[in-house]
Amino acid sequence: MLATINSPQDVKKLALPQLSKLAGEIREFLIKNLSATGGHLAPNLGVVELTLALHYVYNSPEDKLIWDVGHQAYVHKMLTGRMGQFDTLRQYKGLCGYPKRNESEHDVWETGHSSTSLSAAMGMAIARDLKKEKSHVVAIIGDGALTGGMAFEAMNHMGHDGRNVTVILNDNEMSIAPNVGAMHNYLSKIRTNDGYKRAKEEVEYLLKRIPAVGGTMAKIAERLKDGLKYLLVSGILFEELGFTYLGPVDGHDFKALMEAMNQAKQTKGPVLIHVITKKGKGYAPAEDDSDTFHGVGMYKIESGETLKSEGPPSYTSVFGNTITKLAADDKRIVAITAAMPGGTGLKKFAQTFPDRFFDVGIAEQHATTLAAGIATQGLKPVFAVYSTFLQRGYDQLVHDVCRQNLNVVFAIDRAGLVGADGETHQGVFDIAYMRSIPNMTIMMPKDENELQHMLYTATCYDGPVAVRYPRGNGVGVPLDDVYKQLPIGKAEVLREGKGVAILAFGNMVPLAEKAADMLEAEGHKPMLVNARFAKPLDEELLLRLAKEGYHVVTVEEGAVQGGFGSAVLEWYAEHGCHDVVVELMGIPDFYVEHGSVNEQRQEVGLTAEDIAKKAHTLWPAGRKQA
Amino acid sequence: MLATINSPQDVKKLALPQLSKLAGEIREFLIKNLSATGGHLAPNLGVVELTLALHYVYNSPEDKLIWDVGHQAYVHKMLTGRMGQFDTLRQYKGLCGYPKRNESEHDVWETGHSSTSLSAAMGMAIARDLKKEKSHVVAIIGDGALTGGMAFEAMNHMGHDGRNVTVILNDNEMSIAPNVGAMHNYLSKIRTNDGYKRAKEEVEYLLKRIPAVGGTMAKIAERLKDGLKYLLVSGILFEELGFTYLGPVDGHDFKALMEAMNQAKQTKGPVLIHVITKKGKGYAPAEDDSDTFHGVGMYKIESGETLKSEGPPSYTSVFGNTITKLAADDKRIVAITAAMPGGTGLKKFAQTFPDRFFDVGIAEQHATTLAAGIATQGLKPVFAVYSTFLQRGYDQLVHDVCRQNLNVVFAIDRAGLVGADGETHQGVFDIAYMRSIPNMTIMMPKDENELQHMLYTATCYDGPVAVRYPRGNGVGVPLDDVYKQLPIGKAEVLREGKGVAILAFGNMVPLAEKAADMLEAEGHKPMLVNARFAKPLDEELLLRLAKEGYHVVTVEEGAVQGGFGSAVLEWYAEHGCHDVVVELMGIPDFYVEHGSVNEQRQEVGLTAEDIAKKAHTLWPAGRKQA
Repeated sequence: MLATINSPQDVKKLALPQLSKLAGEIREFLIKNLSATGGHLAPNLGVVELTLALHYVYNSPEDKLIWDVGHQAYVHKMLTGRMGQFDTLRQYKGLCGYPKRNESEHDVWETGHSSTSLSAAMGMAIARDLKKEKSHVVAIIGDGALTGGMAFEAMNHMGHDGRNVTVILNDNEMSIAPNVGAMHNYLSKIRTNDGYKRAKEEVEYLLKRIPAVGGTMAKIAERLKDGLKYLLVSGILFEELGFTYLGPVDGHDFKALMEAMNQAKQTKGPVLIHVITKKGKGYAPAEDDSDTFHGVGMYKIESGETLKSEGPPSYTSVFGNTITKLAADDKRIVAITAAMPGGTGLKKFAQTFPDRFFDVGIAEQHATTLAAGIATQGLKPVFAVYSTFLQRGYDQLVHDVCRQNLNVVFAIDRAGLVGADGETHQGVFDIAYMRSIPNMTIMMPKDENELQHMLYTATCYDGPVAVRYPRGNGVGVPLDDVYKQLPIGKAEVLREGKGVAILAFGNMVPLAEKAADMLEAEGHKPMLVNARFAKPLDEELLLRLAKEGYHVVTVEEGAVQGGFGSAVLEWYAEHGCHDVVVELMGIPDFYVEHGSVNEQRQEVGLTAEDIAKKAHTLWPAGRKQA
Repeated sequence: MLATINSPQDVKKLALPQLSKLAGEIREFLIKNLSATGGHLAPNLGVVELTLALHYVYNSPEDKLIWDVGHQAYVHKMLTGRMGQFDTLRQYKGLCGYPKRNESEHDVWETGHSSTSLSAAMGMAIARDLKKEKSHVVAIIGDGALTGGMAFEAMNHMGHDGRNVTVILNDNEMSIAPNVGAMHNYLSKIRTNDGYKRAKEEVEYLLKRIPAVGGTMAKIAERLKDGLKYLLVSGILFEELGFTYLGPVDGHDFKALMEAMNQAKQTKGPVLIHVITKKGKGYAPAEDDSDTFHGVGMYKIESGETLKSEGPPSYTSVFGNTITKLAADDKRIVAITAAMPGGTGLKKFAQTFPDRFFDVGIAEQHATTLAAGIATQGLKPVFAVYSTFLQRGYDQLVHDVCRQNLNVVFAIDRAGLVGADGETHQGVFDIAYMRSIPNMTIMMPKDENELQHMLYTATCYDGPVAVRYPRGNGVGVPLDDVYKQLPIGKAEVLREGKGVAILAFGNMVPLAEKAADMLEAEGHKPMLVNARFAKPLDEELLLRLAKEGYHVVTVEEGAVQGGFGSAVLEWYAEHGCHDVVVELMGIPDFYVEHGSVNEQRQEVGLTAEDIAKKAHTLWPAGRKQA
């Protein structure tokens, strides 16, 4: 049956029992395919019926379906002609793991970060109305994404503006981890239906018993009934914000879903349909552990056993262990995550120090300023966050943390190229955007052992400080038991040399080492430097390089525009060292698509070979003399 | 009486009638002092009683008072020993217009941007509890600031977490302009009290009449009464989010204010006190036109007549006129503001094209992505925003606008040094943070006439584009009636020269012209270039300069780290032009405090003299040969 579905039109031809059958086949397809490619299994298993109902009731692409975050759009991709590409999911040049406008006219909006869908939907609704078109705009947003402040900003606009737009709240009680927050508690209350449902029944029962009287009393009774809508409507919070609330609806019941959608279509103004789904639905291992199966690598279908990658501990886990150890000795340390206790490696900390651990939901703005607030009182907050998500806290970094020069540690995970998540998740801007902020200190370790020392250094430092580290496994070095403070703004010269110095930042050091080996095999002798700091720079070393007639290659896994190398250039310009030739290597000026990190490095020219080649041009035989 | 108040202790000694007298004197003081210095008059007149009550009931600085935005903290400054400094308000080295930690121990948190206070308060409450201290943490936030998403993120955390913290919602129905948004409508409903109050009375009346019966009926009646709290409580939305709602309270009634604050002190968990105040209270001109008197220059006390600055039209007004004219011809143009229709110059557009104008409240994240959503449908959104506030939309710029390469125009006002608002409002980071984002185009006009052409160019351009322009008046050039498209990425050579080229960006061109005059008077002949674009660069010109043996001075009113000059350096490094000496001039690596723009330029070294001096070093007699 799956084979007959090439477009939403094919879905519309089916009767309800056939839809149920199709849902089963879609689940089988996803479970089978993702076992080989990995991907966001649990979120997609949860929205099979919802996606089918959407394509049944609405006419994509005239009607706009906007997927918040977008990792739950696999079923949508399957129904819109891309079933055959699922063996390339999240692979280099393959099917993107998120909506992608150049893949299909049905992908009208690209996502990756959360909480953007309502703003996009509102924008499309405005355009529709200005162009005097008739269509429906539907945003599908999870309860986790609803905690992001920009979603509230959009609802505030929608509820006031009053134009037609539909928000489908896909409530599975989870972000990646279980949700937190007052909104979550509120939704739970609706979900469990307890107080509301009982009150509703009782009020109806009572109203029938109010004696039929005339005059004032009748008017009062009438008004009372009117007023009692506050009791009878579940989603009062949304109603107060100007939405028509429909629900809660069982998200695995086609009939209920379609009824609600059809009702929304006929309702004037903004509508919120509250849909309850089960993450991982239909695959026991994913239902039982939707955290693991949120975004999963390869797994065995029968058992649900995930295939662990062998190798050294991940940077994430080294962070988690180190910060927990540090916190045992340093009572000032407090840890903050924005809805990613697992992804950031903070679970152990949370278990060990529950009073000093704060999961604030998908709320990087609040998390950053919360940390600033804590720091004003002499404590030492550590905000663990992916590089790409810290972008949400940029203003708070500038305005609250750095301007007040507060002791906040940013543990920036997934810095650099991130692989399969692609464009939306690359952690390539943080060096550039942090470097231009006064008072900031930025470091990156060459390996997981140095990460330990850097975290210790950061917690001892007085001022805002970022330690960034890459996704994935460490390089396999032994982990020191005793942590040491690294001198701020000092690089580590790994090999002395002559003529050319390679200044590598963080995870580029191992590649630069390989490059140095290649160059040495050719008879060159480059100086090899582990830069450690992008800010402040090691001025003593830079001056020494100038005095000794070195030329310099800088290497960083970050945007070359305004990055670490740019800082080195600026320093030499400012200090009149005009004879030092500096070559910059980093991420060029485009968004890097999904693939493996190695493929991405090849694409952007950040391999050991590339480094060796670039350094090669700088020796006397090289370009400088040309 | 005012003279006797040197600290909050002095306030606590007063009886209610004395407080009222003091309030009057404070208003007189503010009206008189600000008539000479300018400042945020209306917001402060609105919070006189509120501030007195706060210092009466709470014990600052043990209890933490956190002022959101902070422009309403004048009264707080007066009561905490700074009355004598008000003649230096917002002046160079004078009293800051916002809370400043190094001014007083009573300023526990610095602000300027809105919506940060709840996060800061939560952070301080967490620190208090971890340190096992007893104190009250109170955030004072306006109804305008409440529309910022990060305030919602913080409330979501507070309501869930449940620890003691007090939020005072200072509801004056205004941001700077009248408020918009569903939350505003909701608050109005509470304020006017209409439905709620009537319903409450009627329900109470009715409940008394429910016959006294036993058994099931009694239980039902009991439960009904219980359930009816939803009718009886005004702030149900806040209650649903886990807050205890108190109010609404008359913000000019000492007794009511103190009662509510004392009740909040004794309440467990987060409390929201809804206080209704009148912006401009007690000064008729400010009450009547609180928009003008929000932040005002000098004015005549008797008449409230503001002293208009003479001179050419402001960049803001030229923007407003131009975009309105352009929109008449180009139906695709839509304008967006985040709560600043006046400040951004969009009032005329809003009046002319009400259907194409959107004020989304203080919500830069939503505004940016809303623009992206509109752009996907072939329209041409223009988001007019101050440089410093666009920082809130950074992630949306990276992830939504530029990654999808959408046709959004950013009209960035207050770019560069902004004068009296100081550190928190400097528009100095935008070049650096936008330049590292792929697909971005960044321009800045040398005068208000070029602004017109740049806006026209931007609306014709296909992709994300920023036109940044400074605060204040234009330079006084005639304004062309016919707009022309400027070639993208092309600079304008204003004077041909020899040896040294001064590349000035935007508002630095007039200064560079003066510097060139000075240099010519000395017999030098610098090339003078109006750079126009920080991205893309004019590569042809840069190459020509290299070929003709020029050295280069770049000048920009933006952070020198990662800015326009840095881009020029990178370009020469990338293209092997190692003989070109480049000197960078811009804002150095610290936050620039309040003062006049000229004072700030002197402090950072961005005067015509500084430019001439720097250029001077580059001629053969200069440093290069040293």
